[in-house]
Amino acid sequence: MNSEIFIGYDLTDKIRKEVDKDNVFVITDTNVVLSYGALFMNARHYVMTAGEQSKTLATFEKIMEKMLETGCNRKTTVIAIGGGVVGDIAGFVASCYMRGVEWINVPTTLLAQVDSSVGGKTAVNLGYYKNIVGAFHLPKTVYISTHFLYTLPEREWTCGVGEIVKTAFLSKKVYNLMIDGQDKLMERDERTISRAVRECIEYKRAVVETDPRENGLRKVLNLGHTVAHAIEKVDGHKRSHGEYVLMGMLLESFILKDKLVDGVYEEIVEMVNKCGISVPDFDPVAVAEACVKDKKNTNAGISMIIPDFEKSRETFCSFDELHRGLVLWKLSR
Amino acid sequence: MNSEIFIGYDLTDKIRKEVDKDNVFVITDTNVVLSYGALFMNARHYVMTAGEQSKTLATFEKIMEKMLETGCNRKTTVIAIGGGVVGDIAGFVASCYMRGVEWINVPTTLLAQVDSSVGGKTAVNLGYYKNIVGAFHLPKTVYISTHFLYTLPEREWTCGVGEIVKTAFLSKKVYNLMIDGQDKLMERDERTISRAVRECIEYKRAVVETDPRENGLRKVLNLGHTVAHAIEKVDGHKRSHGEYVLMGMLLESFILKDKLVDGVYEEIVEMVNKCGISVPDFDPVAVAEACVKDKKNTNAGISMIIPDFEKSRETFCSFDELHRGLVLWKLSR
Repeated sequence: MNSEIFIGYDLTDKIRKEVDKDNVFVITDTNVVLSYGALFMNARHYVMTAGEQSKTLATFEKIMEKMLETGCNRKTTVIAIGGGVVGDIAGFVASCYMRGVEWINVPTTLLAQVDSSVGGKTAVNLGYYKNIVGAFHLPKTVYISTHFLYTLPEREWTCGVGEIVKTAFLSKKVYNLMIDGQDKLMERDERTISRAVRECIEYKRAVVETDPRENGLRKVLNLGHTVAHAIEKVDGHKRSHGEYVLMGMLLESFILKDKLVDGVYEEIVEMVNKCGISVPDFDPVAVAEACVKDKKNTNAGISMIIPDFEKSRETFCSFDELHRGLVLWKLSR
Repeated sequence: MNSEIFIGYDLTDKIRKEVDKDNVFVITDTNVVLSYGALFMNARHYVMTAGEQSKTLATFEKIMEKMLETGCNRKTTVIAIGGGVVGDIAGFVASCYMRGVEWINVPTTLLAQVDSSVGGKTAVNLGYYKNIVGAFHLPKTVYISTHFLYTLPEREWTCGVGEIVKTAFLSKKVYNLMIDGQDKLMERDERTISRAVRECIEYKRAVVETDPRENGLRKVLNLGHTVAHAIEKVDGHKRSHGEYVLMGMLLESFILKDKLVDGVYEEIVEMVNKCGISVPDFDPVAVAEACVKDKKNTNAGISMIIPDFEKSRETFCSFDELHRGLVLWKLSR
């Protein structure tokens, strides 16, 4: 079954109607509550501390306890209002509370709107390992209201642009849009934002519908993510997911350069540079070791994605190939 | 998809073959390891402290950490060897580790063999609330080897018999078997055990196949469970699940007596008494309040099951009806 997705400039009225229903439980964070608290203060709710460090089983347990205390039952609808962290944890809560209740997702950041609002992946982290504990649990409805984006801090914005840049190398439509409009997007031009969000979601939906459990095609959405997760871990989650994805794209495309369509590596470098991203200093051994522990790996080796509009696909490399690539990249700086 | 179920007197060879495969992770407890540790000591494994008090998110997290440390990936098969607690938590771990891996269940108690080995319900407790956090995740294979049962302590045995007594009031076949053979079963007669296990599983499978997510028919398997869970909570989990289910059957059938087929209440009393169960003293208000928080409830009221071979069904009662029933039962002692 698919989620129903609404996209618009200001969907506050629709969202308020959901929140005002009888048996709902809102999950949000300390950032969202400052600007949009009035929307849900009368509903049962849980406000988590904003940030990746809250995406733990401890927070998951606290939310469950609050739901139990406030009398939530199997018919309760969980409503997530926030960025990717809120959506991931709220979706996982909905998946497990009394073995599963319905949920609605209201993503409030650009990254969450283009990335985590579709596909039903939910999870929490375990230590420094991202999304190790989770489930596939599609929201009933997703409300993508772009008015939330105008209060986003610059770094959060870049983070979402990163996800759009990633999609540009998988979807020709998003690529064309970015070639013409990356500057406008960076300036938060309303028309460009909604086109980009729509195109990214359309692409992602098509992929996810073909392969909901990530056995095949869906893996291409992990472009750049293996090295991204590893650097994120080694770097101690200092920056946002989207920034690490941009770094991951840079490094993975450098390592896989010979396998890419001519010119793609250079285009990736250009688009990523425009986002103002620089890779922090890292220890190649530590990053390669973190890649080995990535949950996408099987016995075949370390999984990476080769982007290609016609046939993006998974490839595998060994620890040594990866390590050599990372060292060479550092030497080339 | 269904689980493949093997039932036999001694399936050790088959189980050993699974454990000896390359990419497995065994989850078991301190009781099982004493008698059967040799079976899996060479495989990656986690031994939890035996007992309901281990069925928590804390244990769940520790198992996940051990799996990560020992390099488990998406292709790892979790093997649960133990009673219902081990199966419930291991199944939930398998459901969530990297968003889901396969699992095999080797139930070693009578209760787990007849009850929790089929149906794919997995969960942990939250405080005193049982099975609040969980998932539906069917095992790939279930090995029911009755040789495990001969080392069971008496209380564990009674507990499993309790589940069979429950099924006797839902399934005519199990009822006939118990009318003739309850004494033999209590003496652990090999032929009676395997017939009872087979019949109970066959009945439960048929129910679960019709209604995997417990939206309708499957609810009948909760016969006695609403009051059972409430007494269990109020009594502080002092006895085993099966014993509380027998108490729940006694009390619920007393409360619903007018709605039952003639004579059923008396038959329930007789079979339960034969199991040597007595209900501990309880506070009717506390038990009724715990019933209100049961996850099976909706706005319709407190859910209970009316047993009937032809058409077992759900009914609802109010807090006041339930409370009055519990008080009357105490007065009738």
